[in-house]
Amino acid sequence: MKKFSIVIAGGGSTYTPEIILMLLDNLDRLPLRCIKLYDNDEERQNKVAKACEILIKEKDPFIEYVATTNPEIAYTDVDFCLAHIRVGKLEMRSLDEKIPLKYGVVGQETCGPGGMAYGLRSIPGVLENIDYMEKYSPNCWMLNYSNPASIVAEACRRYRPNSRVINICDMPIGMENTIARILGFNNRKEMDIRYYGLNHFGWWTSIKDKEGNERIHDLIAHQLQYGNCLKDDDASHYTDSSWFNTARKVKDIISVDPTMCPNSYFQYYLFGDDIVAHTNPNYTRADQVVDTHEKRVFGECARIAQNGSAKDTTLQIGIHASFIVDLATALAFNTKERMLLIVQNNGAIENFDPEAMVEIPCIVGKDGYEPLSIGKIPTFQKGLMEQQVCVEKLVVDAYEQHSYNKMWQALTLSKCVPSANIAKKILDDFIEVNKEYWPELK
Amino acid sequence: MKKFSIVIAGGGSTYTPEIILMLLDNLDRLPLRCIKLYDNDEERQNKVAKACEILIKEKDPFIEYVATTNPEIAYTDVDFCLAHIRVGKLEMRSLDEKIPLKYGVVGQETCGPGGMAYGLRSIPGVLENIDYMEKYSPNCWMLNYSNPASIVAEACRRYRPNSRVINICDMPIGMENTIARILGFNNRKEMDIRYYGLNHFGWWTSIKDKEGNERIHDLIAHQLQYGNCLKDDDASHYTDSSWFNTARKVKDIISVDPTMCPNSYFQYYLFGDDIVAHTNPNYTRADQVVDTHEKRVFGECARIAQNGSAKDTTLQIGIHASFIVDLATALAFNTKERMLLIVQNNGAIENFDPEAMVEIPCIVGKDGYEPLSIGKIPTFQKGLMEQQVCVEKLVVDAYEQHSYNKMWQALTLSKCVPSANIAKKILDDFIEVNKEYWPELK
Repeated sequence: MKKFSIVIAGGGSTYTPEIILMLLDNLDRLPLRCIKLYDNDEERQNKVAKACEILIKEKDPFIEYVATTNPEIAYTDVDFCLAHIRVGKLEMRSLDEKIPLKYGVVGQETCGPGGMAYGLRSIPGVLENIDYMEKYSPNCWMLNYSNPASIVAEACRRYRPNSRVINICDMPIGMENTIARILGFNNRKEMDIRYYGLNHFGWWTSIKDKEGNERIHDLIAHQLQYGNCLKDDDASHYTDSSWFNTARKVKDIISVDPTMCPNSYFQYYLFGDDIVAHTNPNYTRADQVVDTHEKRVFGECARIAQNGSAKDTTLQIGIHASFIVDLATALAFNTKERMLLIVQNNGAIENFDPEAMVEIPCIVGKDGYEPLSIGKIPTFQKGLMEQQVCVEKLVVDAYEQHSYNKMWQALTLSKCVPSANIAKKILDDFIEVNKEYWPELK
Repeated sequence: MKKFSIVIAGGGSTYTPEIILMLLDNLDRLPLRCIKLYDNDEERQNKVAKACEILIKEKDPFIEYVATTNPEIAYTDVDFCLAHIRVGKLEMRSLDEKIPLKYGVVGQETCGPGGMAYGLRSIPGVLENIDYMEKYSPNCWMLNYSNPASIVAEACRRYRPNSRVINICDMPIGMENTIARILGFNNRKEMDIRYYGLNHFGWWTSIKDKEGNERIHDLIAHQLQYGNCLKDDDASHYTDSSWFNTARKVKDIISVDPTMCPNSYFQYYLFGDDIVAHTNPNYTRADQVVDTHEKRVFGECARIAQNGSAKDTTLQIGIHASFIVDLATALAFNTKERMLLIVQNNGAIENFDPEAMVEIPCIVGKDGYEPLSIGKIPTFQKGLMEQQVCVEKLVVDAYEQHSYNKMWQALTLSKCVPSANIAKKILDDFIEVNKEYWPELK
């Protein structure tokens, strides 16, 4: 069986160790000969690099391992690039979240103004990585799950239309794990689903078991009563109360349209007032990630490095990241796996902008993906999606034209932003703190 | 020259006398043999009917005159129906305006939640009038300027697709009079314009003089400095300060996208916070209309009726309503006049919902209208329009399906409404007061 070489772009991410554990857990279906970490921040990457080396060596000493900040070394002789870069890191995420909240607007990593600011930062970084890949390993596939995926995907569509980049998001996977539990499946792979939307902005319209029996109505009935919580869930079943609230909030979201099952991210677009009311504007998710997840992962990696062993590690396999292995094996072995990807619409959603990047089921094989046709979508969903996709395109227009007005328009158009006045205030604050990352907007 | 018979549907409107004066002032180009007033509210129509009779008799005693609440009498032997019905009258308009304001949301006759409530009331009334027209005068044209024009037009498109109804709005006419003054034209008819959008939701993209010279850039430069005010205007030049504010606000609206000239109604969609801040939630435009315009017109009509003469009347010709005569003469005499109409898109705006009712320039002749092709529109405009047209369609869906959820979705989707929570509160209040007019929503 052929063995593959992988580079993880954004190697300094706290999610890198769990992805490596996941890769090592799946060597039977995706054999590896080389794993490389690549980051442009050496100091940060060093916080996980040694531990990753130990994890790999203990599992399979024949896998070559490299951690580098040199793109040529990183991208030479690789079959797959797993890209999860975060331009501006958690420091900038914190500002993406806090600045909108100053004005009573949802402050979130990928939704609303925060996602737009992050998008404008991320585009050049993603393009740079694609260019390295094409230069040093022209047959490599980039499996790109860098956020904010919608804006990043639109930039890929415009500027690298022929590149071997597949945009994918783990969020629906997470929700499908929950859906499987609600419906009593052992595993989300026991379900065949239909879904459409934009990234972090879509709906499940069918959940079938392997005999082809439709279960979406059971799911709708459950969600109308409990949201995405299990029947007996309370806050104590969740790592923190905000995840419980998010799961429960699906009950409110679906009540607006109880004909299909919404992505939980709609809470930010449809119930922004509730979200803002329950958010501490001085301590947001970014702070929480730094204080808990990052601290824990970096601490554990330091301990592993010091001990020279990971035998007793508390680091866990990133189970839901296994979709990345599914995608890589589909490409490597032509499995025809059905996966949700972010692809150009091209009429798959008949009554929707053909140039939009939409998230829909695709069949993945050796030469890439074939999107399933979705047909016509209803008016409420179309209205929300058309508005949102124009926001995303305007951010990329702002990047392209260095245009203050396009970015102001993007913010003004967003469902999360109440007026052009507030949009301008948020924009001016964003410009101030993003000087190092954004093009100069005129 | 052929003489025509006209019925004014919504005869009890306070605008009826000025429209009659306008018709009488234009007999040279649109000769009339009969003018009828039709309303389903006899008491209200009586407040203007006698005065209208005197106005007509004093101008041309050979014009037959009828005021009736009998549809057969009203619609038999008529060539044109001028329809400006207001289902629920000013009492309901007042609630359309005040209920959203309770929740900090724009309360306006045709924009936002108020327009949706009004739309749901108006659909059956408009359809009923079309049916009377088709029954009693199948060759009659209905020149429909009943508000809210977008929702009414969508209902006409769906339920009476083959009827001889032309949907038109006077609002762009009013703004073009202002634009003509700003640019130094004597008359708006000295300009050839290009415009696209939805009703109360569009942009001028070209203003040419009769030699074909483009003047839009002069207009944009002016609006960026003064909005729709003349250079030396202050509030004292306006009948009240809110009209001054509306004219001035165009400066803010155009600053978001200084490539085309926006309809002033965008103040409600893009600067709702400013509007709400400057609105007295207990005394809205409906109250003002009742206390000033309605009082004045009904008072003057009573005086005319008592005197038996209108020789010294203070009633004025509704000059900007002359577009109705333009439209009627275009149909009657095949003038090929270029007019802004509300018509099914059908690809005229290439990258926009083909089934949307859009406001675009059309050439009007004997057999109706031929829309001009608009081509592709930019992303910001497309995003705003797609969102808004879905709101309008959802209102008609709610009417059709008696659906609480569709109306909730319409309100939730609106750019004027901050969340599904607020949308639901507004909807529940609207249902309470609209029992007599709305279908029962389930």
